[in-house]
Amino acid sequence: MRASQFFIATLKEAPTDAEVVSHKLMTRAGMIRKLAGGIYSYMPVGLRVIRKIEAIVREEMNRAGAIELLMPLVQPAELWQETGRWDKMGPEMLRVKDRHDRDFIIQPTSEEVVTDIARGEIHSYRQLPKNFYHIQTKFRDERRPRFGVMRGREFTMKDAYSFDRDEAGAEKSYQAMYAAYVKIFERLGLTFRAVRADTGAIGGSLSHEFQVIADTGEDLIVYCPDSDYAANIELAEALPLVAERAAPGTAMQKVATPDTIRCEDVAKLVGLPLERTVKSVVLATDTPLGAEVWLLLVRGDHDLNEVKAGKLPGLEGGFRFASEQEIIEHFGCPPGFLGPLNTKKPVKVVADRTVANMSDFVSGANEIGFHIRDINWGRDLPEPDLIADIRNVVAGDPSPDGEGKLAIQRGIEVGHVFFLGTRYSAAMNCTYLDETGKPRTMVMGCYGIGVTRLVGAAIEQNHDERGIIWPASIAPFTLVICPVGWGKSEAVREAATKLYEDLLAAGIDVMLDDRDERPGVMFADWELIGVPHRVTIGDRGLKEGMVEYQHRRDKEAAKVPLTEIAALALQKACT
Amino acid sequence: MRASQFFIATLKEAPTDAEVVSHKLMTRAGMIRKLAGGIYSYMPVGLRVIRKIEAIVREEMNRAGAIELLMPLVQPAELWQETGRWDKMGPEMLRVKDRHDRDFIIQPTSEEVVTDIARGEIHSYRQLPKNFYHIQTKFRDERRPRFGVMRGREFTMKDAYSFDRDEAGAEKSYQAMYAAYVKIFERLGLTFRAVRADTGAIGGSLSHEFQVIADTGEDLIVYCPDSDYAANIELAEALPLVAERAAPGTAMQKVATPDTIRCEDVAKLVGLPLERTVKSVVLATDTPLGAEVWLLLVRGDHDLNEVKAGKLPGLEGGFRFASEQEIIEHFGCPPGFLGPLNTKKPVKVVADRTVANMSDFVSGANEIGFHIRDINWGRDLPEPDLIADIRNVVAGDPSPDGEGKLAIQRGIEVGHVFFLGTRYSAAMNCTYLDETGKPRTMVMGCYGIGVTRLVGAAIEQNHDERGIIWPASIAPFTLVICPVGWGKSEAVREAATKLYEDLLAAGIDVMLDDRDERPGVMFADWELIGVPHRVTIGDRGLKEGMVEYQHRRDKEAAKVPLTEIAALALQKACT
Repeated sequence: MRASQFFIATLKEAPTDAEVVSHKLMTRAGMIRKLAGGIYSYMPVGLRVIRKIEAIVREEMNRAGAIELLMPLVQPAELWQETGRWDKMGPEMLRVKDRHDRDFIIQPTSEEVVTDIARGEIHSYRQLPKNFYHIQTKFRDERRPRFGVMRGREFTMKDAYSFDRDEAGAEKSYQAMYAAYVKIFERLGLTFRAVRADTGAIGGSLSHEFQVIADTGEDLIVYCPDSDYAANIELAEALPLVAERAAPGTAMQKVATPDTIRCEDVAKLVGLPLERTVKSVVLATDTPLGAEVWLLLVRGDHDLNEVKAGKLPGLEGGFRFASEQEIIEHFGCPPGFLGPLNTKKPVKVVADRTVANMSDFVSGANEIGFHIRDINWGRDLPEPDLIADIRNVVAGDPSPDGEGKLAIQRGIEVGHVFFLGTRYSAAMNCTYLDETGKPRTMVMGCYGIGVTRLVGAAIEQNHDERGIIWPASIAPFTLVICPVGWGKSEAVREAATKLYEDLLAAGIDVMLDDRDERPGVMFADWELIGVPHRVTIGDRGLKEGMVEYQHRRDKEAAKVPLTEIAALALQKACT
Repeated sequence: MRASQFFIATLKEAPTDAEVVSHKLMTRAGMIRKLAGGIYSYMPVGLRVIRKIEAIVREEMNRAGAIELLMPLVQPAELWQETGRWDKMGPEMLRVKDRHDRDFIIQPTSEEVVTDIARGEIHSYRQLPKNFYHIQTKFRDERRPRFGVMRGREFTMKDAYSFDRDEAGAEKSYQAMYAAYVKIFERLGLTFRAVRADTGAIGGSLSHEFQVIADTGEDLIVYCPDSDYAANIELAEALPLVAERAAPGTAMQKVATPDTIRCEDVAKLVGLPLERTVKSVVLATDTPLGAEVWLLLVRGDHDLNEVKAGKLPGLEGGFRFASEQEIIEHFGCPPGFLGPLNTKKPVKVVADRTVANMSDFVSGANEIGFHIRDINWGRDLPEPDLIADIRNVVAGDPSPDGEGKLAIQRGIEVGHVFFLGTRYSAAMNCTYLDETGKPRTMVMGCYGIGVTRLVGAAIEQNHDERGIIWPASIAPFTLVICPVGWGKSEAVREAATKLYEDLLAAGIDVMLDDRDERPGVMFADWELIGVPHRVTIGDRGLKEGMVEYQHRRDKEAAKVPLTEIAALALQKACT
């Protein structure tokens, strides 16, 4: 591609609403232009990156035996009613009425349509397994779209859906997709981690997220440097930090803690380590007999994990935080001084595994301005109703596999593989006839990759103060030739054009900057856009038969004989 | 591709709602599955054809200097309000409100968004000309979607938009796109015709449609076999068929024509040729002073051309057919016996060029059951208020370029190039600074190709009773290998696999049917799907060292030595 025939639209300034570096750089590099909140036009540079990602995803999906089709964007409500998601999906699903007043949705995902296709087309066990995928535009009406393409409303996703005869088959399909995803993210040149993830309300038994590691990521990834344990924070198991309950010490004692609410402050005031305090979180469930109030206890330096809480028997149906009125009614005290002792009305007490093994601990006294220290289970209050893992792990926690200590890093979720089971196939009566002629429900999996989000994630992971640094496999151009004095020097034009044509003929995705701009302008543009390899050709160097080569990560350019540059560039661009 | 790893979903029966052969064959060949009216999933076979069409379109667009980007599907109402199309577009534009109750549309086309991009990015004459295109999903909520993908609601279109400094530049861009379109449709292997088309309300000065010739087409194409004149029927100029008005003959005379309404029947009853009769069409316009009634006269064997009528001075603002009440009020008679003589109230009379030169003609008497014969302009009634070309041409009419007689054939519109002028750029203030620093409005063109409609059009043009016959460039597979006895014969498996691998290595898009089906099943499937080349390998032939080759259009297979089949297949598949 010649720059004069391309559209370069770099900007000095990032948009004021850009919070993250990828949003800033994508706008400045002329990759995207905002059309509305969370809706972007992909400019020529941006589209090239998307197409390269799509090509790699497509190749590996096909290699793994998945079959590409294309399901519509506008989908009839009836299918979504069959699975109950028409009611369950909130306002993030865009709904629309056609001219005949019939209900449609703009697809946020395609489980319903693909299951409808499978039940129509697959009749016999001989046709299974099958894995269908498409790379298609999606729309999710995020309440607060942000981070550019990372949490946009209109985006491109690759979504695949496997259909199997039974659970064993579906697990094989899942593993094949897992392996394909590893290959895909490796080929994209990204540092990533596959982590166990929560299966949520869908109720499948297996789920992994693929996380691109980046300090700016929204997700917390828990892993063990000494083993292959990795999970997202929602799922990572927290072991008890106190192995056994020590014998109680002195009698418990009420202490005045005026205006002191946070565990850190109470610990300081009382003169005890934070690890001796217990934090109270009050939840409520709405039952036919009225609200039921729960007291969840975690150690003062820990945080409640709401996903784990949502799996407790009695809370799986959904819970909310208790209202101030409910708290006063049950504890006789507003939030800030709550604890398990002397509640006004009975509440269900759940202790985290660590809390359950603590002795001589501190908690609120259920009285404004007071806490109680040296509380002991059994001696001062009954054993908790329930002991469970209800906290987030923290760095340094023992790894659940017993292999060392956990570390935590940030990531951006770019892929998800999910064992669905029969959640959709049962609801939609998607069956096949087995070897004995008996109808059986197909077992499904679904597998997503956020194509446009990947663009942002790759930048979050690969950039510096000058701009983007693309992994070679997804760079908008692999190599740029910057001729200094294009308009003036016949020799420069000739050398640059020859190199351009040689590399083009060799199949390299090369850009010739024939705009006749000053070197500073050219360098700034291509460093911002992030082309990995650059060859600079100028009159001064040519007189000595030399040109310059520089990788985007190199601090300085290296002089290379003109006669060797094509071979060198080819070698660099292909590795 | 191996059939066992692909998804073949052929059907014996066509859907009952399929009216045209492409809809029937696309469904039977497993290319599409209907999700809702005018909304289809593209199954694996169908998607392959789409991707091949897209690749050819993309290559030629890039070659012509156009630059690919990707504009969003969901577009904010504000931009459409700027150009007035928010109000002008009818219910065929799908409108949607987001969760914040803001108005959006699902794009039917992208003039507004691309003009918004141009005004944001293009500031100087030095950046012009530019031509941006994308290949993107569109939605038009057709009142009556039909003909499968030919008049669907959700479809894929390539739309390009050129921006130029002035009209001369814009015309060059137009010609470049015209030339690219010719190349594209040639490469697609389709018989087509580029025809002048009406520029409609947009008011540009130049427009061509690209029509795929097919007997089942909805459009009528007028052309001159002796010259390069070609236009669609809306635009094709009808010359007067009577060169000069002959002198009046006998006095006019009222004749009883009870229950005789159609010109053909009146002519027969009166004993005159149809060419002596005149047909009356009554239109109305709504003015601030009330409805105005127009009488348009065409010869009895001709039809009114509404597009031409819409260009008459006084009708450009829009017109409708008059109501029966308006007709009775103005003519004193219901439809069936209307004419220009003795109207009850004055009406505006427009005579087609041919009618204006007729003598001794017959028209309704404005009295139930009566016509008048031997009417003459000037003698029996005043000259018409207006003489104009208001009829459709018919086959045999003189060509407007004076080079011979016109012929008419049917076509399917698959492309359209359109000189837009400043219709959008002026409304949206899309300007650039010229050499003198003065702001000037950009001059635009727009250029569409219906990608998914092309799939249907190609089939309408290329099929037989057994199924589709793909042009090689867009066939889902170029060549299929049908091994007879795959499951039984090691020799067959070996020979078929070797040929498959050789052709694959040579870059041929080859399908190996390893399903172990009977020859009849294989042949029927691949003939229905329309793969152009087929090689059949069986034990009986192999014993003599022979295999069979057959083109989809061939009546019989030819025996070819196994040793020569790879070379032959390669040669066939590449030509």
